[in-house]
Amino acid sequence: MISVLVLGSGSATPRVDRNPSGILVNSANSSFLVDCGEGTQLQLRKYKQSLQRINHIFITHLHADHFLGLFGLISTQGMLGREKPLQIFAPKGMEEIIKVQMKITKSWLTYSLSFHEVDCSKSALIWEDKEMEVYNVPLDHKIACSGYVFKQKKKPRNILPLKIEQHKIPVYARKEIKLGADFVDEKGRVIPNSELTVDSEKALSFAYLSDTKVLNEAPTILNDVDLLYHEATFLNDMADRAEATHHSTAEQAAEFAAKCAAKKLILGHFSSRYDELHEFVSEAKPIFANVHVAEDGKWFSTE
Amino acid sequence: MISVLVLGSGSATPRVDRNPSGILVNSANSSFLVDCGEGTQLQLRKYKQSLQRINHIFITHLHADHFLGLFGLISTQGMLGREKPLQIFAPKGMEEIIKVQMKITKSWLTYSLSFHEVDCSKSALIWEDKEMEVYNVPLDHKIACSGYVFKQKKKPRNILPLKIEQHKIPVYARKEIKLGADFVDEKGRVIPNSELTVDSEKALSFAYLSDTKVLNEAPTILNDVDLLYHEATFLNDMADRAEATHHSTAEQAAEFAAKCAAKKLILGHFSSRYDELHEFVSEAKPIFANVHVAEDGKWFSTE
Repeated sequence: MISVLVLGSGSATPRVDRNPSGILVNSANSSFLVDCGEGTQLQLRKYKQSLQRINHIFITHLHADHFLGLFGLISTQGMLGREKPLQIFAPKGMEEIIKVQMKITKSWLTYSLSFHEVDCSKSALIWEDKEMEVYNVPLDHKIACSGYVFKQKKKPRNILPLKIEQHKIPVYARKEIKLGADFVDEKGRVIPNSELTVDSEKALSFAYLSDTKVLNEAPTILNDVDLLYHEATFLNDMADRAEATHHSTAEQAAEFAAKCAAKKLILGHFSSRYDELHEFVSEAKPIFANVHVAEDGKWFSTE
Repeated sequence: MISVLVLGSGSATPRVDRNPSGILVNSANSSFLVDCGEGTQLQLRKYKQSLQRINHIFITHLHADHFLGLFGLISTQGMLGREKPLQIFAPKGMEEIIKVQMKITKSWLTYSLSFHEVDCSKSALIWEDKEMEVYNVPLDHKIACSGYVFKQKKKPRNILPLKIEQHKIPVYARKEIKLGADFVDEKGRVIPNSELTVDSEKALSFAYLSDTKVLNEAPTILNDVDLLYHEATFLNDMADRAEATHHSTAEQAAEFAAKCAAKKLILGHFSSRYDELHEFVSEAKPIFANVHVAEDGKWFSTE
């Protein structure tokens, strides 16, 4: 399962009930942070999430409402005695902003901080470990901007414990069987893999696309995405304003989710002009039924 | 009257119930902001204070918890269509931090933003208008740091309306009388000023001293200050830690308030280790009776 916690569902002008952008992505034993608007460290505390569990931060673009909390978060991680390295993935400029503040505030960190410049002109695998791959996806905003796609790696098949016993499968043979091999027993009999194993859990995916004018084409990497967070700054009666400011409407986000054959859609990044969000759902639902609206403090997960 | 609204009573490591530093100072028709930690713009909204009423911002020092909300606040002021100029008073480096972010985020403002570099090595009058003077006071912190003192200007004396009528005081003569002159009537009689006027309201003062190791001497500018906000990061059992980190204890702040002959003391900038604040009061009260603890969202005023 991949679970995400909305830390900020607002847009550039924040509201008391909607912080600037930030989302925590939990998968297996890892926590990733995507975007880090002003107040993100306090939102993490408010919702009782560990600051130190985050080892990787992905910034979509360098507008203030998406990165302004970064220096506060990394400072606090240091003051709390962090020793684990922290990696930041962001468009060009993020490192300069942080380094200038480090220099002027005469700050030093107790841990290693590294920056990885994301090339927002193309999609690429930008990070992976044994469980997860993270890709960036170029978005269409007024400034260099990338969405991020978190894809769990497919785990090997599971050998049924009963079959290990029945066929006396030695330890050395099990790795190959998990990868799909048949098993030849002591008497030379071939036991087909399908009798020995069951498929592992589905590898799931989450994509975060904000801020962007809706993309005309759904990038291949988003095909069948399990959980899609797409910005919907406006309702469709403000489609002109969305176009002019390189944002999307709820209707456009729903159409895009349908194009991707996404399983579930979360709308977020709402303009501060909207007090209520039910119209975002009613606009998107006829086009994409499994639609939800982001709210600060709300968890969503793959199904 | 001078009223202040605490926007952040916490220190470097924020808590959900204590934002980083920030205080709003209201006097007559003006609002001043002192310090602007992360989340200050949201605190202003939460407590229903106008962002646009603030025309002058004073930053004590360049530690993240005192300035990190500045770029967010000035960006939002712009997005809301501000046209009035904004002036920022801060130690060297503030302008560079903001300008780098303006450049990299490709931001522009709809209003004029000017920076005034505060020399933290000496006290000086750094701003005034017809109602108020603002002085900086050098503090003893690990980095260049200034407190700020807001002093209302004494208004001219008030002429009693009855006396204007009785002695037929012409309009042209009133300005001098308000400044203390006697009046000579048509018949050459001298009416002493004391019969014609009453004193104007007392000119009040507010001082904000954070962050600092307690000062050995009370600067003259703080004599008889009406309302004093002094940091008390620690209780006195951590006086060694206060000394090492250039902060103060509640006891030290109370002693300092007594030295200044302050009328009222507010303690703030509490370390995140303290859940409850009543010990700050009980430690300070025997030394300085009119002591209060800052809490986010709480108003205090001169008496």
